[in-house]
Amino acid sequence: MKQRIFSGMRPTGKLHLGHLLGALQNWEFLQDEYDCVFCIVDWHALFSEYEYSKDIKENIIEMALDWIACGIDSKRSIVFVQSHVQEHLELQMILSCITPLGWLERNPTYKEQLREVKTRDLQTYGFLGYPVLQAADILLYKAAAVPIGEDQLPHIEFTRELSRRFNFIYKKELFPDCKAILTKTPRLLGIDGRKMSKSYQNAINLSDSEEEVTDKVKQMYTDPKRLKLKDSGHPDECNVFSYYDVFGSDQKDDVRHWCTQATKGCTECKMILADKILEKLDPIREKRAELEKDRSIIEDILQEGAAKAKALAQKTLAEVKEAVF
Amino acid sequence: MKQRIFSGMRPTGKLHLGHLLGALQNWEFLQDEYDCVFCIVDWHALFSEYEYSKDIKENIIEMALDWIACGIDSKRSIVFVQSHVQEHLELQMILSCITPLGWLERNPTYKEQLREVKTRDLQTYGFLGYPVLQAADILLYKAAAVPIGEDQLPHIEFTRELSRRFNFIYKKELFPDCKAILTKTPRLLGIDGRKMSKSYQNAINLSDSEEEVTDKVKQMYTDPKRLKLKDSGHPDECNVFSYYDVFGSDQKDDVRHWCTQATKGCTECKMILADKILEKLDPIREKRAELEKDRSIIEDILQEGAAKAKALAQKTLAEVKEAVF
Repeated sequence: MKQRIFSGMRPTGKLHLGHLLGALQNWEFLQDEYDCVFCIVDWHALFSEYEYSKDIKENIIEMALDWIACGIDSKRSIVFVQSHVQEHLELQMILSCITPLGWLERNPTYKEQLREVKTRDLQTYGFLGYPVLQAADILLYKAAAVPIGEDQLPHIEFTRELSRRFNFIYKKELFPDCKAILTKTPRLLGIDGRKMSKSYQNAINLSDSEEEVTDKVKQMYTDPKRLKLKDSGHPDECNVFSYYDVFGSDQKDDVRHWCTQATKGCTECKMILADKILEKLDPIREKRAELEKDRSIIEDILQEGAAKAKALAQKTLAEVKEAVF
Repeated sequence: MKQRIFSGMRPTGKLHLGHLLGALQNWEFLQDEYDCVFCIVDWHALFSEYEYSKDIKENIIEMALDWIACGIDSKRSIVFVQSHVQEHLELQMILSCITPLGWLERNPTYKEQLREVKTRDLQTYGFLGYPVLQAADILLYKAAAVPIGEDQLPHIEFTRELSRRFNFIYKKELFPDCKAILTKTPRLLGIDGRKMSKSYQNAINLSDSEEEVTDKVKQMYTDPKRLKLKDSGHPDECNVFSYYDVFGSDQKDDVRHWCTQATKGCTECKMILADKILEKLDPIREKRAELEKDRSIIEDILQEGAAKAKALAQKTLAEVKEAVF
């Protein structure tokens, strides 16, 4: 019996290299070992995008295209859209009733996001409750584990606490403790050296054309101390060099050599990197283009996924209602 | 074309005279003039009863029995259970995303209830959001009006503000402004002179037997200044006299006379009142007993009601999603 894992992603825009390395590549591997439930969490997207909600529909399809193109296998894994399975909201409602307000108000990630996010008004009732919906997402499938980055550990902890509170109040060991599968992922910066993010417009997207990828790599900031071709560079301070770590680790010694010895210029170095990145992205883009020809394929995948997810969700919700009512 | 009204009641326990006079009697009349949607709001019950949630299932059936026995006509009106129509939660989720947290935190009724309710821990995420769910309940049926007591005016105001915010953000006049139908209802105190309430155990319930009603009336507090039969009483300070207002207004002059002139004692006065109350309750109890013989009738009514409600709810939710997504 394989253990089940749950993971979700908000359909708020195009997926980029950060998503590939931080999540999708890992998800692909996890499919061998686990029963995977991968959810496009559109209600979570609405929390922040309620004023830009017209984009969500298209983002859902784009996200599904990216996932499948990156190797998520809808035959082995369940791939679906959160809002297609109404049981998420029913479990969220039940959990809402037992969630102490203070747990949410004191949530450090919540407070951080209120502080950091400047382009969205997140002071809403919905957004305050996102950890409750997230807990419902995970618990509805009785996931044994959730693959996450270290920064998301408080979310899993919240889910665990809430599920224990449920088990305690309703005197039933209904939900298992859910573990984190911590994945060490190389942190790739954007082409301007800041955090890679859609809102900074500094991301290389999975759906970018060859020209777009090459153009973006050309624009990348390099070692600011290397002014002329003859100056020797400092690879450890160069964003381009850190990309080689991920996309051309076999060539890192060469790069260090040509940079510090000034035998190649930054432009040439970036063109070589662009080819390396394209080696990775070309097959994804090709599979994506193939899928895009007939979008009904993606729609069918999501519909089948919703049916499979619903079957699991209904079973859990029936047990939950049995315990509560 | 009749206008539509929506009203709900929380299935938290037995219905008593206060419910009959404050709501049900009025609902019965409203059926002539309006298309009525009457909802047993069980999610709202869970907000406060999450630790006593095993009672909700039975309370739902008891409430439906009381409603039908009191003249709610399931042929003309829609009678259903909130949780049977999942669209309530979908609309609530969408509204949650646009509800400023401050609107809820500053809600005077919310703050009052946190202060007043001692037997329940209401400091939960769910309870903070009850006005959002209430707004969803009303807006899902595009109710033109809601019959309420004056103390509930802030709730309608909240619903109106939220629906206007929705219309504004999504640039569509989707929800009509919802009016309050203010009903002046005689405020009947409990048999101990305090507010009539299940938790004070001072209520005369619609399902009480003749003996229980008579017993409870016998226990009623009367004029504390009338110690002996020969003392003249002060009807305007007597709880029993205020009951005559409601159940025997034709006889009020007589009562005032026998009380002030000390021609009848309090016990006799209460026995006469008990008969008056039973005149009102006997037909209700009889109809209730008849209905109770075959509970499948009530279950069928609620199932049919849910189907009718769902048809309306789906139509509104489709329009909402069209506007948002």
